[in-house]
Amino acid sequence: MLYFHNDYHDACHPRVTDYLQKISGEQVNGYGVDPYCQSAAEKIKRLCDNEKLAVHFLVGGTQTNLTVIAATVRPHQGVISADTGHINVHETGAIEATGHKVLAVPTADGKLTAKQIDDLVANHYSAEDAEHMVQPGMVYISHPTELGTVYSLQELTEVSQACRRNGLKLFLDGARLGYGLTARGADITLADLARLCDVFYIGGTKVGAMFGEAVVISDAAIARDFRYIMKQRGGMLAKGWLLGAQFDALLEDDLYFEISRHANAMADMLRQCLKDLGVPMLAETVTNQLFPILPDDVLAKLKQEVIFTEMHRVDESHRAIRFCTSWASQPQQVQLLCQRLQELMK
Amino acid sequence: MLYFHNDYHDACHPRVTDYLQKISGEQVNGYGVDPYCQSAAEKIKRLCDNEKLAVHFLVGGTQTNLTVIAATVRPHQGVISADTGHINVHETGAIEATGHKVLAVPTADGKLTAKQIDDLVANHYSAEDAEHMVQPGMVYISHPTELGTVYSLQELTEVSQACRRNGLKLFLDGARLGYGLTARGADITLADLARLCDVFYIGGTKVGAMFGEAVVISDAAIARDFRYIMKQRGGMLAKGWLLGAQFDALLEDDLYFEISRHANAMADMLRQCLKDLGVPMLAETVTNQLFPILPDDVLAKLKQEVIFTEMHRVDESHRAIRFCTSWASQPQQVQLLCQRLQELMK
Amino acid sequence: MLYFHNDYHDACHPRVTDYLQKISGEQVNGYGVDPYCQSAAEKIKRLCDNEKLAVHFLVGGTQTNLTVIAATVRPHQGVISADTGHINVHETGAIEATGHKVLAVPTADGKLTAKQIDDLVANHYSAEDAEHMVQPGMVYISHPTELGTVYSLQELTEVSQACRRNGLKLFLDGARLGYGLTARGADITLADLARLCDVFYIGGTKVGAMFGEAVVISDAAIARDFRYIMKQRGGMLAKGWLLGAQFDALLEDDLYFEISRHANAMADMLRQCLKDLGVPMLAETVTNQLFPILPDDVLAKLKQEVIFTEMHRVDESHRAIRFCTSWASQPQQVQLLCQRLQELMK
Amino acid sequence: MLYFHNDYHDACHPRVTDYLQKISGEQVNGYGVDPYCQSAAEKIKRLCDNEKLAVHFLVGGTQTNLTVIAATVRPHQGVISADTGHINVHETGAIEATGHKVLAVPTADGKLTAKQIDDLVANHYSAEDAEHMVQPGMVYISHPTELGTVYSLQELTEVSQACRRNGLKLFLDGARLGYGLTARGADITLADLARLCDVFYIGGTKVGAMFGEAVVISDAAIARDFRYIMKQRGGMLAKGWLLGAQFDALLEDDLYFEISRHANAMADMLRQCLKDLGVPMLAETVTNQLFPILPDDVLAKLKQEVIFTEMHRVDESHRAIRFCTSWASQPQQVQLLCQRLQELMK
Repeated sequence: MLYFHNDYHDACHPRVTDYLQKISGEQVNGYGVDPYCQSAAEKIKRLCDNEKLAVHFLVGGTQTNLTVIAATVRPHQGVISADTGHINVHETGAIEATGHKVLAVPTADGKLTAKQIDDLVANHYSAEDAEHMVQPGMVYISHPTELGTVYSLQELTEVSQACRRNGLKLFLDGARLGYGLTARGADITLADLARLCDVFYIGGTKVGAMFGEAVVISDAAIARDFRYIMKQRGGMLAKGWLLGAQFDALLEDDLYFEISRHANAMADMLRQCLKDLGVPMLAETVTNQLFPILPDDVLAKLKQEVIFTEMHRVDESHRAIRFCTSWASQPQQVQLLCQRLQELMK
Repeated sequence: MLYFHNDYHDACHPRVTDYLQKISGEQVNGYGVDPYCQSAAEKIKRLCDNEKLAVHFLVGGTQTNLTVIAATVRPHQGVISADTGHINVHETGAIEATGHKVLAVPTADGKLTAKQIDDLVANHYSAEDAEHMVQPGMVYISHPTELGTVYSLQELTEVSQACRRNGLKLFLDGARLGYGLTARGADITLADLARLCDVFYIGGTKVGAMFGEAVVISDAAIARDFRYIMKQRGGMLAKGWLLGAQFDALLEDDLYFEISRHANAMADMLRQCLKDLGVPMLAETVTNQLFPILPDDVLAKLKQEVIFTEMHRVDESHRAIRFCTSWASQPQQVQLLCQRLQELMK
Repeated sequence: MLYFHNDYHDACHPRVTDYLQKISGEQVNGYGVDPYCQSAAEKIKRLCDNEKLAVHFLVGGTQTNLTVIAATVRPHQGVISADTGHINVHETGAIEATGHKVLAVPTADGKLTAKQIDDLVANHYSAEDAEHMVQPGMVYISHPTELGTVYSLQELTEVSQACRRNGLKLFLDGARLGYGLTARGADITLADLARLCDVFYIGGTKVGAMFGEAVVISDAAIARDFRYIMKQRGGMLAKGWLLGAQFDALLEDDLYFEISRHANAMADMLRQCLKDLGVPMLAETVTNQLFPILPDDVLAKLKQEVIFTEMHRVDESHRAIRFCTSWASQPQQVQLLCQRLQELMK
Repeated sequence: MLYFHNDYHDACHPRVTDYLQKISGEQVNGYGVDPYCQSAAEKIKRLCDNEKLAVHFLVGGTQTNLTVIAATVRPHQGVISADTGHINVHETGAIEATGHKVLAVPTADGKLTAKQIDDLVANHYSAEDAEHMVQPGMVYISHPTELGTVYSLQELTEVSQACRRNGLKLFLDGARLGYGLTARGADITLADLARLCDVFYIGGTKVGAMFGEAVVISDAAIARDFRYIMKQRGGMLAKGWLLGAQFDALLEDDLYFEISRHANAMADMLRQCLKDLGVPMLAETVTNQLFPILPDDVLAKLKQEVIFTEMHRVDESHRAIRFCTSWASQPQQVQLLCQRLQELMK
């Protein structure tokens, strides 16, 4: 079988395993107060070019999203998100369970614009009965988005400015951040994120770690007492050094970016193949996720040799699916998938 | 000035005041355990033709909505609502503050259909990752809707059946219930509501009471310990007899329905006037709310003599507004408003 | 029957009724934005000697407590309270339902001391694992307390200073505030409360109003967007002027304090009578609540003519009960109760 | 240095590492739907002698506690716990953050008794104003307790019966379950737990795993939709097989119990040593935690060679501390610690 269903089906990159093995047996403090967490945090601050950032390590994405949002907004405030945003669709109401409404905004490509933010805020405050509606308190974006698209530095700067002029905090979900930062044409750096966002995270689970997300906070109000809220929401790992060690390994010698670039390159190969076959795409992506729309009969056969993710039905005889590459994808596998698609699409 | 901005700008119907005055000085238990609450509850059960119903009295609509929903759904469940529904738009996220997502469904006229419910539930459970999404647990409808439209008995029956076959509870917000039940062509009775809904309420605040909503529960699971949840959410009035007494007065000699019919008749007069003038409407209503779309210059002048509610802008030179009649509206006032509109629209 | 079971068994003081009747028929805005709320708020600011206070009117005590606390503390923070505090015992977990732990402190007389606050905070922050415990964020006291005791100005000043040096907000529950401020020997004024507390409320429900509590906020962070949170928690009354009007009546010509003094004087009569009879008290009070400990056989007979509240059993043959006076208590009634007690205790 | 500060300072047992290494590179489904989770669940069901149990794997203890409780009780219900219970003291209000009060009961030894449960419930329902207080909905116990004590089968049976006759669900926190089940004199089996509790968990984090807790649910109402609530609370690990694999390793060939017995044996050695030295204990334990009370000067010197956990101060010159053994503790280390104590206590 060929595995293209997601970017977290392999345990983790071998260098992560090696690192964990190397330090096993050492005795360190629990709960994230240990030399590995500290070392990883230092690396992140250096990459972000800001020594004053707060860095914390959590286990997974939903946990991170709900913890950050709970730490940030007041009870009557909601979180602006693209309607395709992970918090709006795929977290079983985790944000609402912390008491906050997700203010969903329709988008063509999964990306929020500065204008949408300005308009939503202006509409809110211009209403006579604004107090009867949820006050926008935060903007949630993801990079890349759920649709695999990425913000340009210009776009992100505008979004950040819109947040600041409207008194909103900006939170960037980087569950797949590596793929976004290393995509063709991408011009955003970690230092840009630290400068433009109030809080963001560097995803590990989907980018080579066994598990783990590194939260980077530049806003002092969000940073305050963040560990209390991590603990309260079940997000403080007893053996916290397992998280620090993984990020310390991934951030050594550019590994995180190297494997992200690799996955993007594998996706590019596959993208070209699909393009050559004239396969339409649900969304135009530049990262490691591809959303081709394929005929049902092709999918029925493909399924016997390839693992992929089914998205929604597009018409009576076509369905959108997702192919996803990762650090573990090999060129030969992509070639095999291409060949198979060529045969089936003939 | 002419007052047509809402149906709760007057304190309450004189017969409510008289009743309260009559009983003042009597000594009864607090917290809703008193002869007036009991008498009003008995009347409601009789009107609903069901002695087993649980009846509770709360102060206002948002409080009632959040208390009923908190009492009903489990943490991972959300509430299906028209996207125009009061809980989705005008309660500052009260439902999310109880931990639950509102699953908003677009509608043309504010009414949910059985098919929409079936489809939403089918889509949910057919998804591979259903557990990553909010499970539908309840349907919230209002009668009349926020757009002044009403369900037919046939439509409500279908919605109720859709709820039952999909394992959803049905909750009907009756903040303006009187106007809905007495509208031209309306064929739903209180007994129908008690039979078709798991819980609904009879609105007092907007139908002649000073304040108060009477919750009627037929579902045993929702009824269980409901008073605990009322108390917890701040909805148990110390002098609960004030609520019971108002409903006892309103339900005596058909008063509640009589004043609702009156308000609808006043709205019919005004509707005919607007129709004669060729004024387009935002929504076609049969109850006491009207949503005409009027030119800005007309509105600017009208504002000097008439109090109305501004809705949203429709185009560069037109805005939708709301006129609302009530038990207190007088034919002369409607005539004056009509004359003024005729002059301004010439 | 003689009614001494609580201070809210009568609807309201006649001057409140008169005022409501006088203004009925006037047309004002809803939701607390009206001339009566404004006038009552102005009177309160004048009495508090501070024009910058924010004043809001809510319907009941539990609603007020949960709304104020939700508006104030961050998710990981709890509220320090005497273990007898109303929020800890008698609100069905309303505070926990907003997500916050009540940090209950045992007291002899229902009053928290500055030292208790200092100690609790010092213990918290000196723990190595402070982040694994709820952070104290607010102090909740009531005046008078649940046990009918009152703070002196000196004590309240010390509590306030303890809060400020420890970074805690101070919230004073004044459900029975009138009785506390006018008790024999009481030396606290509304201006003191506005100066020493971050937020407090002037109780109406138990001091002559039909219902209503006036929240007074001096802290800017709590005041910010308070109406949003009122609305979200179901505490924004549609016909808000009903609340403003009641407080406007109660604060005219010293009425609120006059009726409080009256109730205290009635309690003093009864207290002297119980003292003369050698009846032990559960707690020594100076306000309108008395907690005598009486033999079961006396209570069995007393019950036939007097309505009182049963507290807990003290020993095999004695039980503590509560007598409560109000604006409506008459000297003759107190005398009749005394006589009856004298007969039964012979 | 000698490490006796807790039972989770080592990464995990070598056989867990070996197992993880062995399966690395295999391709399985995410989110806990994989052969390793299935295999571990089957082993647990077999050990519990009940094929109908639901078994789920979560990452940590706080997460497990809050998820189980959120899944079980209704909004107005609280959780009865010893006042020393982990959820009452050391989870930063995680339970309150789900909306529920912890009903804390003082105990001498960390263990709740059937009588305490009966009394609390009887007191609640006998109160006239029961609806104004939090309704008990669940009993939370831990085995061993925070004080290292264990329930006998007789005691646990009585607690279970008390829960059933009072309509309460019984939840047993087994963060250190292995040590409890294998303690000297312990007579409880996994099958007993499955029979007597509605839900319990088998702790991995503190008993040889890197991380992970295995929740075992016998009650159908709690089991229903449990995965939704896991996901919502951030407790569904993307690479869920990491959890299944660890438990599959620990439950192979009795490993979980073997290492628990070993840790208890090490604790017994140390216990004997302390006894011989006449050191008083904060609590009498039979499991892997010991709570000696030692003089400050001894502790000051001990600290230079031994890592232990400081508990609270007992008197001016003594402090209670905790020594904790684990699967990794070696007899030589215990002997060294004993020798050092003997020298210091001379």
